[in-house]
Amino acid sequence: MAYHSRSHKASAPPAPAQHGSGLPYPVPPNYYGPTSYGSSHGYSDFPSGTHPDVIRSFQMVDMDRSGFIDESELQRALSSGYQRFSLRTIRLLMFLFKNPNDSLKIGPKEFAALWSCLGQWRTIFERFDRDRSGKIDSMELRDALYSIGYAIPPSVLQVLISRYDDGSGRRVELNFDSFVECGLIVKGLTEKFKEKDPRYTGTAMLTYDTFMSMIIPFLVS
Amino acid sequence: MAYHSRSHKASAPPAPAQHGSGLPYPVPPNYYGPTSYGSSHGYSDFPSGTHPDVIRSFQMVDMDRSGFIDESELQRALSSGYQRFSLRTIRLLMFLFKNPNDSLKIGPKEFAALWSCLGQWRTIFERFDRDRSGKIDSMELRDALYSIGYAIPPSVLQVLISRYDDGSGRRVELNFDSFVECGLIVKGLTEKFKEKDPRYTGTAMLTYDTFMSMIIPFLVS
Ligand SMILES: [Ca+2]
Ligand SMILES: [Ca+2]
Repeated sequence: MAYHSRSHKASAPPAPAQHGSGLPYPVPPNYYGPTSYGSSHGYSDFPSGTHPDVIRSFQMVDMDRSGFIDESELQRALSSGYQRFSLRTIRLLMFLFKNPNDSLKIGPKEFAALWSCLGQWRTIFERFDRDRSGKIDSMELRDALYSIGYAIPPSVLQVLISRYDDGSGRRVELNFDSFVECGLIVKGLTEKFKEKDPRYTGTAMLTYDTFMSMIIPFLVS
Repeated sequence: MAYHSRSHKASAPPAPAQHGSGLPYPVPPNYYGPTSYGSSHGYSDFPSGTHPDVIRSFQMVDMDRSGFIDESELQRALSSGYQRFSLRTIRLLMFLFKNPNDSLKIGPKEFAALWSCLGQWRTIFERFDRDRSGKIDSMELRDALYSIGYAIPPSVLQVLISRYDDGSGRRVELNFDSFVECGLIVKGLTEKFKEKDPRYTGTAMLTYDTFMSMIIPFLVS
């Protein structure tokens, strides 16, 4: 697919695009993201080559060795092996990585994919935290998302980042947790839109039912 | 407008519709909600006739008499005069009732409109809690939303309510807080969709930018 070859792997972000007076709005043809959300089907063991830390983190919380973990177990697994994430981010991760046939849990394969995805977001986070503040501000977020193929309109960027405004009047900056949350929302919604725009015209015809069904899973997480 | 005359006032819900084998899907022409979100512009005093309890609740949290309250003050005001709501619901209320020109605060008029809206949701909640469990289950939610003009597809209803599933295996039931959250989401998104479907065809053509801009405010609350 020409589309995919045009975009970049999140695991190896390209050098940041050169921005002059701003991003090329309206959305360019490569506004869709590169990699699709993880997860082969079936719940066998971990893929070969999975790092022992990943397996250890999973097994530590899967106390009954059922081979599945729920959202609070996922939160604990990532807290031990990675870092603590808010339940909002955890729920988005669950929603995006879980096996579509199982509504509430994820297994070893999904967990390994999720972990690897977080590593990709981490790489992007560090690359685009240009002032080394340890956080991502609005322009850094814009460039980070742009580097993996998402050109976010300024109005959307503003609303997206305003939710993390603590009202102090200080410039809003995202920690890694919030950065991942933003990234997953943008990527997940874009993938949904793409499904309804298979010819990549940038426009989709949506019925009310479709519109609601696309969005609700993101909304109430 | 024929459309509005066909729908019902939330303040006076009609007798529940008779459902046989389910709702009439796909969405009927009156799937849009009746009343629009509150709030005249400008920040003068309370509208005449505002109940003293409402004014008292507002003033109690507006300590500096600025005439504006933020989200945590709103939460406290409703906790004292009404009931405690989650920050998620509070943020949706803020987003839907705030003056569009002021990003973070609401004044007396907006507060009065918000309070009145909660009273309407309360009436609906009690009317459709048919088994008097003090909570609203999936079918009660469906009928409650239907009574005020929203025909939610079964798949959307399922996803909507599944987020309140505590994993215990028990039937999911919503308390008033969650019921209001669901109602505001359905109503708010439908209003957004309606803006893009001015002739009420049930279908809207959306660009990627528009799609994202419509949804993000709901997503990250
Ligand atoms: Ca930074
Ligand atoms: Ca009930």
